[in-house]
Amino acid sequence: MHHAPPATDGAATLALRRVAIDTHHENVAYLHRDCALYRAEGFQALSKIEVRANGKRILAVLHVSSDPRIVQCDELGLSQDAFDRLGLAKGHPVTVSQAEPPESIPALFRKIEGERLTQADFTAIVRDIADHRYSKIELTAFVVACNRAELDREEVYFLTEAMVAAGRRLDWQAPLVVDKHCIGGLPGNRTSMLVVPIVAAAGLVFPKTSSRAITSPAGTADTMEVMARVELPVEELTAIVRRHKACLAWGGTADLSPADDVLISVERPLSIDSPGQMVASILSKKIAAGATHLVLDIPIGPTAKVRSMPEAQRLRRLFEYVAQRLHLTLDVVITDGRQPIGQGVGPVLEARDVMRVLENDPLAPMDLRQKSLRLAGRLIENNPDVRGGDGFAIARDILDSGRALAQMNAMIEAQGSRHFDHHHPPLGQLHFEVLAPAHGVVTGIDNLQIARIARLAGAPKVQGAGVDLFHKLGDTVAAGEPLYRVYADHTADLAFARQATLRSTAYSLGTPEQLPHVFVEF
Amino acid sequence: MHHAPPATDGAATLALRRVAIDTHHENVAYLHRDCALYRAEGFQALSKIEVRANGKRILAVLHVSSDPRIVQCDELGLSQDAFDRLGLAKGHPVTVSQAEPPESIPALFRKIEGERLTQADFTAIVRDIADHRYSKIELTAFVVACNRAELDREEVYFLTEAMVAAGRRLDWQAPLVVDKHCIGGLPGNRTSMLVVPIVAAAGLVFPKTSSRAITSPAGTADTMEVMARVELPVEELTAIVRRHKACLAWGGTADLSPADDVLISVERPLSIDSPGQMVASILSKKIAAGATHLVLDIPIGPTAKVRSMPEAQRLRRLFEYVAQRLHLTLDVVITDGRQPIGQGVGPVLEARDVMRVLENDPLAPMDLRQKSLRLAGRLIENNPDVRGGDGFAIARDILDSGRALAQMNAMIEAQGSRHFDHHHPPLGQLHFEVLAPAHGVVTGIDNLQIARIARLAGAPKVQGAGVDLFHKLGDTVAAGEPLYRVYADHTADLAFARQATLRSTAYSLGTPEQLPHVFVEF
Repeated sequence: MHHAPPATDGAATLALRRVAIDTHHENVAYLHRDCALYRAEGFQALSKIEVRANGKRILAVLHVSSDPRIVQCDELGLSQDAFDRLGLAKGHPVTVSQAEPPESIPALFRKIEGERLTQADFTAIVRDIADHRYSKIELTAFVVACNRAELDREEVYFLTEAMVAAGRRLDWQAPLVVDKHCIGGLPGNRTSMLVVPIVAAAGLVFPKTSSRAITSPAGTADTMEVMARVELPVEELTAIVRRHKACLAWGGTADLSPADDVLISVERPLSIDSPGQMVASILSKKIAAGATHLVLDIPIGPTAKVRSMPEAQRLRRLFEYVAQRLHLTLDVVITDGRQPIGQGVGPVLEARDVMRVLENDPLAPMDLRQKSLRLAGRLIENNPDVRGGDGFAIARDILDSGRALAQMNAMIEAQGSRHFDHHHPPLGQLHFEVLAPAHGVVTGIDNLQIARIARLAGAPKVQGAGVDLFHKLGDTVAAGEPLYRVYADHTADLAFARQATLRSTAYSLGTPEQLPHVFVEF
Repeated sequence: MHHAPPATDGAATLALRRVAIDTHHENVAYLHRDCALYRAEGFQALSKIEVRANGKRILAVLHVSSDPRIVQCDELGLSQDAFDRLGLAKGHPVTVSQAEPPESIPALFRKIEGERLTQADFTAIVRDIADHRYSKIELTAFVVACNRAELDREEVYFLTEAMVAAGRRLDWQAPLVVDKHCIGGLPGNRTSMLVVPIVAAAGLVFPKTSSRAITSPAGTADTMEVMARVELPVEELTAIVRRHKACLAWGGTADLSPADDVLISVERPLSIDSPGQMVASILSKKIAAGATHLVLDIPIGPTAKVRSMPEAQRLRRLFEYVAQRLHLTLDVVITDGRQPIGQGVGPVLEARDVMRVLENDPLAPMDLRQKSLRLAGRLIENNPDVRGGDGFAIARDILDSGRALAQMNAMIEAQGSRHFDHHHPPLGQLHFEVLAPAHGVVTGIDNLQIARIARLAGAPKVQGAGVDLFHKLGDTVAAGEPLYRVYADHTADLAFARQATLRSTAYSLGTPEQLPHVFVEF
């Protein structure tokens, strides 16, 4: 019910000031307690205010100061990021008013009450979210109200479409633009870094943008960054793809589905990963990145994100429904998620595995090679000239002949090489090994615990930190034989990781009959 | 997954500094970017940190500064409220560490996933909320996950009990302590200010603590404040009740159900008022205030909070279930909520109406008098010496004889009189009248619109602002006759209120047959 009297609206101007306080992603404005405007408008601390100048405007939370060294009576202070976002010089005149509540708030309230929303509702909500007009309270309410089965499949489509519309959409001027995504949860699963060079070498356009790790020990962007620059301005990214058909870049610079990043800032601390939100997040990013054909990897296993075949099938159908509404050709592949893929977990270790596969090194992890070839084969078969079933063999020829390696090296050079030598990978200086407590067959590897150990050891922030697995499911180990080695750079990190291994090694040993069943083709 | 290396924990100390920034209810800590601790711990801006000294600790959101005039490298700055909350001198050594996530977070995640929680879960969650350990994100997630029918009635009991346990509980050392509450939504409904003096004059202990208006134009505390001090320290409040059997005080000083205040800070901006949360909020406050017998007023009407008898009955049963589990004797009264109660809406106008009733002034609004007598009668019948059905007559005798007025005056003196003269009430200096557009019978008064107009006019902040109603349901009015007068102190407020009356006067005129049906006894 608070309001700004219309008489003063737009009249009072203040001089812009940069306050040297970093408030991370939250815009904070500072007004002096004795500022005439503050008194006239009846603002309260923590009110949301709108700051306007030169046709630009930002919203900010208000902090009130009585210290003229922070802000003076005729000034409006902005925290660092907010100042940069407004993009004006110190001293520039700005006008300040109480922020209007976002237009989509009535629709949000209806969703909180459990009502079904229309396409127009989702468009309005997502636009407000992408414009940073929602408070943390409103944002969280939206995420929780859309959690679980609260969205029907058409609403998921509305949400996805709205998320695409709220950001930039890349257009590659090509009839066939392929992409590949995994819903996540498997440590070491760096297939993208093999699928992209193989499929690009087969002639398809593959502008791969990836995220950094959110809760995992390494994302594709983190791993590629060991070898090359990944933070590429859109113009540079476009030029590289035009020249080399593909890239392996961080998606954060391209403003693709910006509402997704805002939503993730709330979903992550709440561990919310509902099917509807997962589908909207993944498909909006892919559509915005310009993909026309997508292969999607859903791993299942006792410690994967998806734990049963019926659950995987339900998720597949939701992905397929939304993809079809968005005219995206989607190929869902349900894969073996019983254990990590490859040998290394952590940016440097995973980059080493990828290069070993590309160089056909005898030390290359076979599971990473096989899975990548199969996914690449599926994408290659989108080429109308390729016969169904031939994709795998084409992919294997490209890999075995060294053409995938050449493609990767060209991309690394184009993006800016970091001169990574996988024969002498820059691993953490500290390490310890975890030994098998008894003779037996490896019957289980806990994905979540391996990820936890690698993160405690410092990954992905410390690139050389992580876990190097010496044994996988079905291997027979002797008592005292090392199961894996943990790398770290800092003593404290090493201690934390060691404590975690003492609580649980992540390995189960037993007899061959205890091996969990594989439900899937690969 | 971020963590504080144990080696440095508790070792680094910084000098406390007060930063002259008002961040309202949010604790903010300021560290200099070059502070060794900040670098060693890997804190990020907006991390939650724990500040400890002298056995005290508070949690704060971290802002990082590079301006030594705000905070120096060896200092920890705290925003005004946070500094006051810690209660230590400038320069006092403090230790700082990454805040541990609240213990109850796993239970919160289970509620988000739709699971039923145990009593221990609710106890842990509410304790963390009352201790301000939840972030805005976590708080909102809890509120939205408990919205609608998400809590069963036993869970509502668990929540209520946990909210009582998290704060202070007053003990009046008396077998019979009465209280009275209305679920709200009716402008002018100041029955408490009559029920308390009548029932106390009948000899019952009635320590009434009230809230201020949250979304209404006046709460009982706001109205009583026109006549007396209401912000009483608990010791003073206790002494007044011991001497006079009753008080009419603001509940905010007594730390009763502190989690409720925190939850309201999220529920209000989201307009969430679900049955479970309403029951837990109201009953926890009453139990904490020491009540043994409560009369609860649920008004129903087309613009009241509850709009149908079945809805009122469902709500009544939930209140009764939880009250019985808490050993509170509860008497639910479903009342006529078709229109505002009394004549005035706004603190001064409502205080005037209350005093007119107490003085048996012929101008006193009869509906306010009648409703108050009935509610008082119900409470008086809790006295085992009173026969069922005699309460109303006893209440009327007390009011007519002037004993209720004497009791009120004694309470006003004890709390600290503000020398309010209701014959010359200090009303807003500006006013305008809204006229009947045609001849007819008043067939509807929109409670929500009357409340909106009174708030736009400045109530409750401007005590003399509000709406004075000249006609109620069933009155016949001539074209051009004033329906009500709006009072304000500021030109802009008056203009806003006038605009609102132009959109809707809140009055419907018609024929006697169009009067909405009364479903209830009173």
